[in-house]
Amino acid sequence: MESIMEVVTQLSQRITEPQLWSKVIIALLKIIGILIATKFGLKFSQTMIERIFKSKEDDDRYTKQRNSTLKSVLKSAVRYLIYFIAVTMILAVFGISPAPILASAGVVGLAVGFGAQSLVKDVITGFFILFEKQFVVGDYIKIVGVDGIVEEIGLRVTKIKNFDGDLHIIPNGKIEQVTNLTSDLRRVVVDAPIEYEQDISEATEVLENLCQEINQEYENIIAEGPKVLGVQDLAASSVNIRVIAMVEAMESWGLARILKQRIKERFDQEDIGIPYNHLTIVNK
Amino acid sequence: MESIMEVVTQLSQRITEPQLWSKVIIALLKIIGILIATKFGLKFSQTMIERIFKSKEDDDRYTKQRNSTLKSVLKSAVRYLIYFIAVTMILAVFGISPAPILASAGVVGLAVGFGAQSLVKDVITGFFILFEKQFVVGDYIKIVGVDGIVEEIGLRVTKIKNFDGDLHIIPNGKIEQVTNLTSDLRRVVVDAPIEYEQDISEATEVLENLCQEINQEYENIIAEGPKVLGVQDLAASSVNIRVIAMVEAMESWGLARILKQRIKERFDQEDIGIPYNHLTIVNK
Amino acid sequence: MESIMEVVTQLSQRITEPQLWSKVIIALLKIIGILIATKFGLKFSQTMIERIFKSKEDDDRYTKQRNSTLKSVLKSAVRYLIYFIAVTMILAVFGISPAPILASAGVVGLAVGFGAQSLVKDVITGFFILFEKQFVVGDYIKIVGVDGIVEEIGLRVTKIKNFDGDLHIIPNGKIEQVTNLTSDLRRVVVDAPIEYEQDISEATEVLENLCQEINQEYENIIAEGPKVLGVQDLAASSVNIRVIAMVEAMESWGLARILKQRIKERFDQEDIGIPYNHLTIVNK
Amino acid sequence: MESIMEVVTQLSQRITEPQLWSKVIIALLKIIGILIATKFGLKFSQTMIERIFKSKEDDDRYTKQRNSTLKSVLKSAVRYLIYFIAVTMILAVFGISPAPILASAGVVGLAVGFGAQSLVKDVITGFFILFEKQFVVGDYIKIVGVDGIVEEIGLRVTKIKNFDGDLHIIPNGKIEQVTNLTSDLRRVVVDAPIEYEQDISEATEVLENLCQEINQEYENIIAEGPKVLGVQDLAASSVNIRVIAMVEAMESWGLARILKQRIKERFDQEDIGIPYNHLTIVNK
Amino acid sequence: MESIMEVVTQLSQRITEPQLWSKVIIALLKIIGILIATKFGLKFSQTMIERIFKSKEDDDRYTKQRNSTLKSVLKSAVRYLIYFIAVTMILAVFGISPAPILASAGVVGLAVGFGAQSLVKDVITGFFILFEKQFVVGDYIKIVGVDGIVEEIGLRVTKIKNFDGDLHIIPNGKIEQVTNLTSDLRRVVVDAPIEYEQDISEATEVLENLCQEINQEYENIIAEGPKVLGVQDLAASSVNIRVIAMVEAMESWGLARILKQRIKERFDQEDIGIPYNHLTIVNK
Amino acid sequence: MESIMEVVTQLSQRITEPQLWSKVIIALLKIIGILIATKFGLKFSQTMIERIFKSKEDDDRYTKQRNSTLKSVLKSAVRYLIYFIAVTMILAVFGISPAPILASAGVVGLAVGFGAQSLVKDVITGFFILFEKQFVVGDYIKIVGVDGIVEEIGLRVTKIKNFDGDLHIIPNGKIEQVTNLTSDLRRVVVDAPIEYEQDISEATEVLENLCQEINQEYENIIAEGPKVLGVQDLAASSVNIRVIAMVEAMESWGLARILKQRIKERFDQEDIGIPYNHLTIVNK
Amino acid sequence: MESIMEVVTQLSQRITEPQLWSKVIIALLKIIGILIATKFGLKFSQTMIERIFKSKEDDDRYTKQRNSTLKSVLKSAVRYLIYFIAVTMILAVFGISPAPILASAGVVGLAVGFGAQSLVKDVITGFFILFEKQFVVGDYIKIVGVDGIVEEIGLRVTKIKNFDGDLHIIPNGKIEQVTNLTSDLRRVVVDAPIEYEQDISEATEVLENLCQEINQEYENIIAEGPKVLGVQDLAASSVNIRVIAMVEAMESWGLARILKQRIKERFDQEDIGIPYNHLTIVNK
Repeated sequence: MESIMEVVTQLSQRITEPQLWSKVIIALLKIIGILIATKFGLKFSQTMIERIFKSKEDDDRYTKQRNSTLKSVLKSAVRYLIYFIAVTMILAVFGISPAPILASAGVVGLAVGFGAQSLVKDVITGFFILFEKQFVVGDYIKIVGVDGIVEEIGLRVTKIKNFDGDLHIIPNGKIEQVTNLTSDLRRVVVDAPIEYEQDISEATEVLENLCQEINQEYENIIAEGPKVLGVQDLAASSVNIRVIAMVEAMESWGLARILKQRIKERFDQEDIGIPYNHLTIVNK
Repeated sequence: MESIMEVVTQLSQRITEPQLWSKVIIALLKIIGILIATKFGLKFSQTMIERIFKSKEDDDRYTKQRNSTLKSVLKSAVRYLIYFIAVTMILAVFGISPAPILASAGVVGLAVGFGAQSLVKDVITGFFILFEKQFVVGDYIKIVGVDGIVEEIGLRVTKIKNFDGDLHIIPNGKIEQVTNLTSDLRRVVVDAPIEYEQDISEATEVLENLCQEINQEYENIIAEGPKVLGVQDLAASSVNIRVIAMVEAMESWGLARILKQRIKERFDQEDIGIPYNHLTIVNK
Repeated sequence: MESIMEVVTQLSQRITEPQLWSKVIIALLKIIGILIATKFGLKFSQTMIERIFKSKEDDDRYTKQRNSTLKSVLKSAVRYLIYFIAVTMILAVFGISPAPILASAGVVGLAVGFGAQSLVKDVITGFFILFEKQFVVGDYIKIVGVDGIVEEIGLRVTKIKNFDGDLHIIPNGKIEQVTNLTSDLRRVVVDAPIEYEQDISEATEVLENLCQEINQEYENIIAEGPKVLGVQDLAASSVNIRVIAMVEAMESWGLARILKQRIKERFDQEDIGIPYNHLTIVNK
Repeated sequence: MESIMEVVTQLSQRITEPQLWSKVIIALLKIIGILIATKFGLKFSQTMIERIFKSKEDDDRYTKQRNSTLKSVLKSAVRYLIYFIAVTMILAVFGISPAPILASAGVVGLAVGFGAQSLVKDVITGFFILFEKQFVVGDYIKIVGVDGIVEEIGLRVTKIKNFDGDLHIIPNGKIEQVTNLTSDLRRVVVDAPIEYEQDISEATEVLENLCQEINQEYENIIAEGPKVLGVQDLAASSVNIRVIAMVEAMESWGLARILKQRIKERFDQEDIGIPYNHLTIVNK
Repeated sequence: MESIMEVVTQLSQRITEPQLWSKVIIALLKIIGILIATKFGLKFSQTMIERIFKSKEDDDRYTKQRNSTLKSVLKSAVRYLIYFIAVTMILAVFGISPAPILASAGVVGLAVGFGAQSLVKDVITGFFILFEKQFVVGDYIKIVGVDGIVEEIGLRVTKIKNFDGDLHIIPNGKIEQVTNLTSDLRRVVVDAPIEYEQDISEATEVLENLCQEINQEYENIIAEGPKVLGVQDLAASSVNIRVIAMVEAMESWGLARILKQRIKERFDQEDIGIPYNHLTIVNK
Repeated sequence: MESIMEVVTQLSQRITEPQLWSKVIIALLKIIGILIATKFGLKFSQTMIERIFKSKEDDDRYTKQRNSTLKSVLKSAVRYLIYFIAVTMILAVFGISPAPILASAGVVGLAVGFGAQSLVKDVITGFFILFEKQFVVGDYIKIVGVDGIVEEIGLRVTKIKNFDGDLHIIPNGKIEQVTNLTSDLRRVVVDAPIEYEQDISEATEVLENLCQEINQEYENIIAEGPKVLGVQDLAASSVNIRVIAMVEAMESWGLARILKQRIKERFDQEDIGIPYNHLTIVNK
Repeated sequence: MESIMEVVTQLSQRITEPQLWSKVIIALLKIIGILIATKFGLKFSQTMIERIFKSKEDDDRYTKQRNSTLKSVLKSAVRYLIYFIAVTMILAVFGISPAPILASAGVVGLAVGFGAQSLVKDVITGFFILFEKQFVVGDYIKIVGVDGIVEEIGLRVTKIKNFDGDLHIIPNGKIEQVTNLTSDLRRVVVDAPIEYEQDISEATEVLENLCQEINQEYENIIAEGPKVLGVQDLAASSVNIRVIAMVEAMESWGLARILKQRIKERFDQEDIGIPYNHLTIVNK
C-alpha cells in the first residue's frame, strides 16, 4: 500500500518539476516557428516558380504548352515537399522521427517502394518528353506498337488517338522509343508493277510524264517530286518501278492514294498491264 | 542453500519495490490514452473522408462512380493504418518495438516484400485508372490483348466481358496500355474490291451515290459520311476503293455490316464484279 | 601452478554466487510463462477463426467452398506464427536473438529471400483468387494459354483439366489474367458462307426461318436467338452471313455443332451452295 | 632499450596472469560441450526424421517414393545445418563471428546471393513438386515446351525422356506450369472429313456403327465411347465429323491410330470419299 | 507558478551564456568560408574543363563534335556537384546532415532510385557512344529494329530519321547493339534467276560482260566489281546466279537498282528468260 | 613558438613510450603467426583435396573426368580463399578492416555486385552440370536452341560443336534446360505416305516384310524393330503409315536415311505410289 | 557585451593551444607520407604488370594480342585504384570519410549503382572473352543474331563486320552465346533433289563419280569428301540426296556454290531432272 503512495508521490513530483514545463514551452515556440516558416516558404516558392516561367517571352506555342504543364506540376511538387518537411519537423519536436515508423513497417515499405517504381519512371520519362519536346499535341506519332495523333501529354500518361477513333492511353514509363511521323516532310512511296514482257524504259517514260503532271497539279502539298527512282525489284510475277515524292506530313496518305489511281489510269490508257500472279504449268 | 534464500529475497524485493509499480501504473495510463486517441482518430478520419467526397456536387455520373469507390477504399485504408499505429504504440509501452520482430524475420520479410510488390503495383495502377478516368463501366476497351465491355473497376482487378460472354479478370498492375474504343465517335472502314478491268471513276460514282443514300437512311447514328476516300490499294487481284464513315462508337460494327451488304447488292445491280483471286497461267 | 588454482577458485565462485541462480530461476519462470501463453494463444486463435467463419450463414456454395479453404489455411498460418514467436521468445530468454543468426548467414538469407519470393507471390495471388471468387471448382476458364475445367483451387497451385484429360497444374503466381468462360451466358457464333452469285436476302430469309425452328427445338438451353446478324465479311470466295445465339455456358459448343449441321442441311434443301475456294484463271 | 625491457615484462605478465588461463579453460569446456551437443543433436534429428516417415503406413507407392526422397533430403539438410551451427558457435568461442567475415566480403556476397537465387528456387519448387505429388516417375507430362515420361524427380532437376529417346534435364525452378497427361483417362479425338456432297446423316450412321464395333473390340482399354459428336467444322473442302472416346491414358495414341485406319477402311467400303482440297476454277 | 518563473530564468540564462555565442560566430565564419571555397571551386573547375578540351588540336570534325558535347555536359555536372557539396556542408554547420532526411524518406527514395536507374543508364550509354565514336551525325545506322540517318546524338537520346521522314527518338539506354552501315564500303548483292533449261555457263558469260560494262560506266562510285560469284541457289523454279560489287556506302541502294534493270534488259536481249514459279501438273 | 616546442616534446614522448613498442612487437608476432598458419593451411587443404578425389576407385571414365575438373577447381578456390583470409587478418593487425573500404566504395560495390552475379551463376550451374553428370564430353546435346557434340565442359562455359563445324560457346548460367540425345537408345521415326486409293493392309504388309529384312541386315546397330505402328495420319493428300525402330543413339540419323531409301525402293517394286499433293478442281 | 569578449577569448585560446598545432603537424606528415607511398606504389605496380606480361615468351599471336590488351587495361585499373585509395586516405586525415558522402547521396547512389551494372557486366564478359580466347580478330562468328568477321575485341564492346559491310558494335555484356564458325574445318552440305520416277541408285552413282572428280580438282581446300550420304528426305515433290564435304572454314561458301553448279550440270548431262513442285489434279 505504502509503495503505491510512493508511486503517486513520484508521479506528482514529475509533473510539477520546472524542467518539464521548460521543455513544453520550448516545444510550443518551435512549432509556432515551423508553421510560420512553412507559410512563408510556400508563398516564396510559388512566386519563384511563377516568375521563372513568366520571364521567358518566347512566341513558340510548344514551349508555352510545356511551360504551363511544368509550372503547375512544379507548384504542387514543391507544395507537398514543404508540407512533408513541416510535418517531419513538428514530429521531431515531439521526439518522433518518421524514419523508424517507416522502417518498422519495413516489409510494407519494401513492397511499396518496389511497387511504386513504375510510377516514378512514368513521371521521369514524362518530364523528359515535355522537356525535350519529343512531340507535341497534334503530332502523328508511333509508340509501343500503336500510332495516332497526340491528344494529351501528361506527366504520367500520354494519350494518342488513331484515325479509327481508338484512344490509346499509355503510361510514359512504357514509352521507350518514339517515332514522330510529322516532324518534317514525309516521303510517299508507290511501287508500280509492270509485266516482265513490258519494255522498262517505255514504262519509265510514261511514269515520268505522269509525275510531272501530278507535280503541277498538287504543287501546294508537294515539296519535291514525284520522280521515278528505277527498278526496285525483279519480283515473282512483275517488275516493280518505284516512284517517290516528298510532301507535307499529313498529306502523305492522300497523295499515295492519288498516285496509285493515276498510275492505274495512265497505264490503262497506254496499254501497260499490271500483272496478276503468274504460274508456269508443266504437264506430265 | 543460503544462496537460494538470497535469490528468493532478491526476487521478492524486486516485486515490492515502488518503482516497478510506478512503471506499471504509467503503462496502464498510456494504454488507456492510446485507446481513447484511437477511437477518436477513427471517428474523425471517417467523418473527414465522408465530407471530402460529399462536398463536391458534380452531376457527372463517372465522377460519382469514382468517388464512391475511392471513399470506401480510403475509409478502410485509414482504418487499418490507425489500428496498425495503435498496436505499434501499445507494443512500445511494453517495450516491444515491431521493427526487430519484422527484421528478425528478415529472410521472410525480404521474400514477402518482393512477393507483395505486384499487389502494391495493382493498387497503385488501380488508383490511377479511377483517378484519371481512363475508362468507366460500360466502355468498350482493349487491354493486354483482350477486349470487351468494362464490367467492374476495382482497386486490384478490372473485369471486362466480351461479346462472346468471356469474363476477363485482369490485375490492374498488368494493365500497361489502355485502348478506349468508345471515348468518342468511331470510324467505319470498308474496302470495296473491284476488278482491274473495271473503270475506277465509274465505280467511285456508284459508291458515292450509295453513300448519300446510306447517310440519309442512318442519319441518327452517322455523324459524318460515309464518303469515298479513293484507291487504297492496287492489290494482287483487285483495285480496292476505301469508303469511310464516322458513327456512334457502339454502332460501328453494325454499320460496317450494313455497308458491306449494300455495296455488294449495289455492285450486283450495276454489274460491277467483286473479283476472286486471279492467276495468269503460262503453259510450257 | 598457483595461477591454475586461482582459475579454479574463480570458476567455483562464479557458480556459487547467488545472482547467477537468481537469473536461472527467473529464466525458468519466464519459459514456463511463455509455454502457457503459447498454449492459450493457440486455443484462443483457433476458436476465433472457427467462429469467424461459422457465424456467416450464406447459402452460396461458392462462399462455403472459399471459407473452408481459408479457414484451414488461416489456422495453420496462425499456428506456425505462434510457434515461431514462442521459439523466438524462449531463445531471447537465453540471450540468443534469431536476428544475428539469420543475418550472419546473410548470403544464404539473400539467396533464400529472393528464391522464395515466387512462393510468396503464389500464396498472395492464391488468396485473392479465393477471396475475390474469380472462379470456383467446375468453372471453365482460360489462364496462361491453357483452358479447361477447374479441378482444384489451392493457395499455391490451381489445377484445371481440359476435355482431352490433360491436367494443368499452375502456380497461382503465374496466373495474371483469368478468363472465366462460364460466369454467364455464352454467345454462339456461326458464319454461314454463301456464294457471291447467291442472293443475300434470300439466304438471309432461309437462315431466319431455320433460326426460329432451332429456337423452339432447343428452348431449354437457348436464352436468346439464334438470329441473323448480317453480312460479316465479303471474303475471298464467299459472302459470310453471321448467325448468333446466347446459350447456357456449357451448352455453347454443342449448339455450335447443331447450328452448323442444320445450316448445311437447310442450304442443301434450298439449293444454296457453300462455296469452295475460287480462283480466276487467265491464260496467256 | 629499457623500454624494450618494459615491453617484455608486460608481455610475460600477460601470459602468466590467472584471468587469461581462466578464459582458456572455459573456452575449452565450451568447445567440448558444443561437440557433444552436436553429436547428440545429429543422432536425435536423424532418428526423428526416420521415425516421421516410417510411422506413416500408406500403401500408395507414390507416397513411398516421395517420402524416401524427402527423408534423405531432410537428413542431409539437417546434418549440414547442425554442422553450420556448431562451427559458428566454436568460432564464437574464439570471439570470431562469421557475420563480419561474410559482410566484409560484401561485394562478393551480393554477387553470390543473387547468383544463387535460382539454385534456391530450384530446391523450393522441387520440394513442392514432391510434396504436392504433381507427377511421379512414369507419368507422361508436358513442361516448359517439352514432353515425355518422367524418369527422375530430384530436388534440383527433373528428368523426362520422350519417345524418341531425348532425355530432357530441367531445373525445377524453370518448371512453371505442369501438364500431367496421365493423371486420368484421356480423350481420343478423330475428325472424319467427308465431302460436301455427302449426306451427313448417312455418314454419321456409318460412323456410329463403326464406333459400336470398336467399343466391343477394345473394351479392355476403352472407358467410354467411341461416339459421334456431330459436325465439328464446315471446313474449306470438307465437312468434319468428330468422333471421341475416353481411354486409358497411355493407350490414347494407339487407339487414335486404330480409329483413323478403321474409319478410312469403313468409308472405302461404304463409298464415302475423304475429299482432297477443292478449288473452283473460273476461266476468263 | 514559481516553476514557470524558474523556466523563464533557465531560458534567459541559456541565451546569454557565452558558449552559445561562441558557437554562432564559429558557424558564421564556417559558412563564409564554404561560400568562398564554392565560388573558387566553380571557377577553377570550369577553367580546367575548358583547358582540357582546348589543348587538343585535332582536325577530325567527329572529335570536335564529341568534345563540344562532352565539355558542356562536364561543366554542368561539375557545377551541380559543387552546389550539392556546398549545400551539404552548410547544412552540416547547422548540425543537419542530409543523410537522415533522405533516409527518413526511405520508401520514396527506394522508388526514386529504382525509377531513375534507366535515366542513369541512358546517360552512361550516351557517354560511351560519344566517347567510342560508334557513330556520328550523318551515318546510316540500324538500332533497336529501326534504321535511318543519325540526326542528333545527345547524352540521353539519339535521333535518327529514315528515308520516309520518320524521326525515331531512342533513349540511349535502349541502344544495345548498333549496326553502322556507312562505316566503310558496302557490298551490293543481286541474284539473277535463270530457267533450269538455261545453260549456266552461257548466262554467266553474259553477266560477266555486263559487269565489265557497268564497272566502267560507274567507276566513280564502284570500288570493286561487279563480278559473278556463281550458282547461289538451285531454287524451286530457277537457278540463281549471284552478282556482287563493292561501292560507296550511300550509293549501294542506287547501284542495286541499276544492276537489276541492266540484268533484266541484257537477259531480254540475249533471250535468257527470267522464270515465273513453275508447277508440274499430274492429271489423274 | 613555445607551443611548437611543446608539440615536438609530445611527439617524441609518444615514440619512446614502451606501450607503443609493446604493440609493435605483438603485431609482428601476430603477422608471423598468420603467415605460418597460411602456409600450413594451404598445404593441408591441397593434400586433403588430393586425397578425397584419389580415394575413390571408380572405373567410370565420366567420374574421372569430373573429378579431375573439380579437383583443380577446388584447389584454386581454396587457395584464393586462404590468401583472402590471410590478407584480411594481416590488415586487421594494423587496425584496417576491409569492410569499410569496400563499403566506402558503396556505389561501385553495388554495380560490381550486380554485374558479377551472372558470373557467379555461370559457376554454380557449371558445378551442378559436372556434379550431376548431366552430360559428358562426346555426348550429343541440345541446349539454348543449338545442338551438337560436347567438346568441353568448364566451370564458366560449355563448348559444343555441331556437324557443320560451328563451335558454340555457351556460358553455363544460360543453360537452363538440357536435352541429352545420347543418354540411351534413340527412336527412328519414318512416316511412309501412301495414296488414298491404296489398300492400307497391303501397304502395311509390304512394310512389315521390309522391316524384317532391315532388322536382319543392320542387327548390330538396331536394338528393336523396325516395326509398323499403323496409320499415323489421314493427311491432306496421303495416308501416312508410321515405321519406328530403336537404335544406338549416334546411328539414328544413318538408319533413318536407310529406311527412307528402302521404303521408296520397295514401294517402287510393289507399285505402291508415294502421292504428290492433290487438288480437286471444280470448273464453273 | 562581456559575453562576446568571452567568446573572442575562447576562440583565441583555441588557436594558440599546443595540441591543435601538434595535430596539424602530424596531419601534414601523414599527407606527405601518403603522397610518397602513392608515387612508389604506382611505379611498382606498373613495373610488376609490365614484367608479368613480358616474361611469357609464347609465339602464339592470339596470346600476344590478348596480353597487350590486358596489360594496358590492368595498368589503368591499378592506377585509378591507387589514386582512389590515396584520395580516400588524405580525406581521412582531415577526418572526412568518403562513405557518408556517398551514403548521404543515397538515392543518387542507388540509381547510379543500378544504372552502371550493365557497364560492369560488359567489362567482366569482355575480360573472359579475351582470357578464354573464345574468338580472335579475323574469326567469323555469330553472336546475338548477327554474324561477321571480328574487327576488334575491346573490354566494353566487340565489333564485327559482315560481308555486306555492316559494322555491328555489340556491348560485351549482351554477348551470351558465341558461335565461332572458323575454329576448325566446316562441313559443306548440298541436297540434290531428284524426281520420284528417277532410280535412286543410278543418281547416287552419278553423284559419287562427280564427288571424286571434285575431290581431285579442289584437293587444296577440301579436307574430306565430298561424299554421298544417302536419301535425306522423301520430300513433297522430290527425293533429296545429301552430299557433304569437310573444307577449310572460309572456303565453305565457295565450295557450296561449286557443288551446286556441278551437280546441276552433271544431272543435265545424265538426263536426271531436278523436279519442280508437283500437283496431282483430280477433276470433278
